Amino acid sequence: MPSRIGRFEIEQVAGNGLLDRRALLGRGVVLAGAVGAGAVGATTGAAAEPLKDGPWSLEVGDAIPPYQRPSGFEKAVVRTVDNPKNEPRNSRARTPHHLLKGIITPNGLHFTICHGGVPDIDPAQHKLVIHGMVKQPLAFTLEDLERYPMVSRIGFVECGGNSAPLFSNEPIQANVQALHGLASCSEWTGVLLSTLLEEAGVDPKAKWIIAEGADSPHLIRSVPLAKVADDAMVAMYQNGERIQPGQGYPMRLWLPGYEGNMNVKFLRRVQVTDQPALTYYEARTYSQILPNGKAYRFYFLQEVKSFITSPSPGLTLKEPGIYEITGVAYAGTGRIAKVLVSADGAKSWAEAALQEPRLPKAFTRFRMPWRWDGQPAILQSRAWDEAGNMQPTREQFVAARGQTSKPPSVLGFPSQHFNSITSWAVDGKGEVRHVYA
Amino acid sequence: MPSRIGRFEIEQVAGNGLLDRRALLGRGVVLAGAVGAGAVGATTGAAAEPLKDGPWSLEVGDAIPPYQRPSGFEKAVVRTVDNPKNEPRNSRARTPHHLLKGIITPNGLHFTICHGGVPDIDPAQHKLVIHGMVKQPLAFTLEDLERYPMVSRIGFVECGGNSAPLFSNEPIQANVQALHGLASCSEWTGVLLSTLLEEAGVDPKAKWIIAEGADSPHLIRSVPLAKVADDAMVAMYQNGERIQPGQGYPMRLWLPGYEGNMNVKFLRRVQVTDQPALTYYEARTYSQILPNGKAYRFYFLQEVKSFITSPSPGLTLKEPGIYEITGVAYAGTGRIAKVLVSADGAKSWAEAALQEPRLPKAFTRFRMPWRWDGQPAILQSRAWDEAGNMQPTREQFVAARGQTSKPPSVLGFPSQHFNSITSWAVDGKGEVRHVYA
Repeated sequence: MPSRIGRFEIEQVAGNGLLDRRALLGRGVVLAGAVGAGAVGATTGAAAEPLKDGPWSLEVGDAIPPYQRPSGFEKAVVRTVDNPKNEPRNSRARTPHHLLKGIITPNGLHFTICHGGVPDIDPAQHKLVIHGMVKQPLAFTLEDLERYPMVSRIGFVECGGNSAPLFSNEPIQANVQALHGLASCSEWTGVLLSTLLEEAGVDPKAKWIIAEGADSPHLIRSVPLAKVADDAMVAMYQNGERIQPGQGYPMRLWLPGYEGNMNVKFLRRVQVTDQPALTYYEARTYSQILPNGKAYRFYFLQEVKSFITSPSPGLTLKEPGIYEITGVAYAGTGRIAKVLVSADGAKSWAEAALQEPRLPKAFTRFRMPWRWDGQPAILQSRAWDEAGNMQPTREQFVAARGQTSKPPSVLGFPSQHFNSITSWAVDGKGEVRHVYA
Repeated sequence: MPSRIGRFEIEQVAGNGLLDRRALLGRGVVLAGAVGAGAVGATTGAAAEPLKDGPWSLEVGDAIPPYQRPSGFEKAVVRTVDNPKNEPRNSRARTPHHLLKGIITPNGLHFTICHGGVPDIDPAQHKLVIHGMVKQPLAFTLEDLERYPMVSRIGFVECGGNSAPLFSNEPIQANVQALHGLASCSEWTGVLLSTLLEEAGVDPKAKWIIAEGADSPHLIRSVPLAKVADDAMVAMYQNGERIQPGQGYPMRLWLPGYEGNMNVKFLRRVQVTDQPALTYYEARTYSQILPNGKAYRFYFLQEVKSFITSPSPGLTLKEPGIYEITGVAYAGTGRIAKVLVSADGAKSWAEAALQEPRLPKAFTRFRMPWRWDGQPAILQSRAWDEAGNMQPTREQFVAARGQTSKPPSVLGFPSQHFNSITSWAVDGKGEVRHVYA
């Protein structure tokens, strides 16, 4: 494996330092510290610099715990909770995207929204009842469900209100966790709801199901039977282990690509019907208000979207030089086909590398090498799905969906399904902030 | 979505109740409890059976924590630790495969082996030094590495000594966690080691690297440069977040498909050389002793393997009827091509369903529907990789690698790279135990 130092020039592929995505480094752009030859190796007897033995190199470490937790040095890598005293209102915990890499969200850091706190459900007492327009109403215990054929699938869940601060007519100064932290991606395992409905025997006239949660707010949502037949899952496992309390323990409805609140947590009831329920949560809370004062009756799909997770606000660039621009893209419609990145506020764009596997309705990690010259820059990403849908520009998005000069709210201002482009401005000091561009 | 009850017969595809893998249920084989029509719905005002409100349905739940943990009802889902008092010997923690589903091992439950406890390394003081046959020795801080192009990949790590109890000439009575718990699968993200070696400039005469850990045992292993050029990674993230202390925080060498101990944790040094080091760990501890008294000098690859995770010892079948046989298959050579399952001790076999995505050098989840008739049965799985390699039978395996009448040991008995077939016997009471068949 000969070194390729100096053999190639690094090729710029778009304005303001975006580099060829096939360009590895190793071409004279060394970021590491040089070491004098022969000066390496604490254990070889040579000079100890730069390999100083820390105390962990000299003493026995700790006992292995039965359930492993992150290093104490990572205690800042947590979700932000907006209702820590558990006051009688909604509670949200947001995923720290700026500190994560890859496509899987670890179970400790998956976002959650609870309307009445996190319930502590005894799985031995929990049942899922299927009734309504069926031949035989049925009640499933967790033990029953364990015996059915299961499926596993990696995919995202996103709150319909994720990114709601971007409806503001002025860019709200916050980091990617605060702006986009209500989306996460896991491997979910469970039984297809269609398998259970086949057991009950669905009336051919049925067109909807109505799903209800077991926690005290009993969130109820209507789902078209066509979506259920396609890929709806009663999920019991998340990244291998039982789903977390915040994700609906002991079971949740998972509707790949549909807005978060429809993925009813703590699922206890599925009623088969010929019409939607038009419940509080779907007729009022999660309706999308349009500029003309009307509202979409239903708006299920989380459309194609992307955002840059690094660099991003709070991750200051300490010096000019090479960096990796990276982020996540996803679409409720299917696979991500392409992500373009700009470093000059949309004057020019280059295609980012997409990490395989690109799974449908899952996060796709994108990456783009960048040489920051120390001057102001504006970083953006824009994604396309395989059906050809693209993230709208802010101008297009605001024209169709509106914006507000007041803080976003679910009580009458547009707040749902924001999927336009996010712009991060890097200033001459390497600090990053949220802008519209 | 009309019910298909009664429209099809469930087709048997091999002896003793293995069913067509395309056979969904919903054909009159209902596992759930029947419910009287109109008797459903606590919140609709109808009779409350069977939807009893638990206390979690009537009261506000708990506050959302910044870092989420599994339900208290899942406290048995932990790793088994074999050195809980941290005595001066090796420590192991094994993954509870019988309680997990899917292909991702959650970070809390990834297996680990430590030779000197779990070190508590300050990442700000940790460096990775590359030296030896290079143009310029280099020292990388974690901050340096964050700026390089990264890659993400889902893949397994398996201890070379995983499944060592199966070398015994009598089947040791233990569950799948005890027998096969030293293998796990995660999404790893980091910088390819080849990227860093290109920065240092490798001497064309170099053929090996020697990798060293920063914890007190300073485990040292030699790796062919060809493997490094192929896919070796300096991994810093595991399932999205920073890697766990037990997996090598703040960085480890990851060699997809190579035996666990070579994936040096707490990586602090990579020396480029023209020959292997023949260290204690590779010349003695992790050598494979053969029946003729000789030993393999090196045995890097974890070969094609599979085992059934459910049913398995401890997961007793409560009644005759339909169950899902499921497990994991993996190969250090690449993708899994096929898994066959037998319920009659290898008299007949049927092909299991393989869950997509089937990723190279990663767990693949397989599934097979089974109707247990209440009689004794012997369950087995056998995997093939895409290169055509198959799991050997026990007879073939023992002839080539030997077995022992004493407890397995690394001090002279064969104990490494067991990849033959595992057999679970189900008795008339539905209890499952380990047998040779």
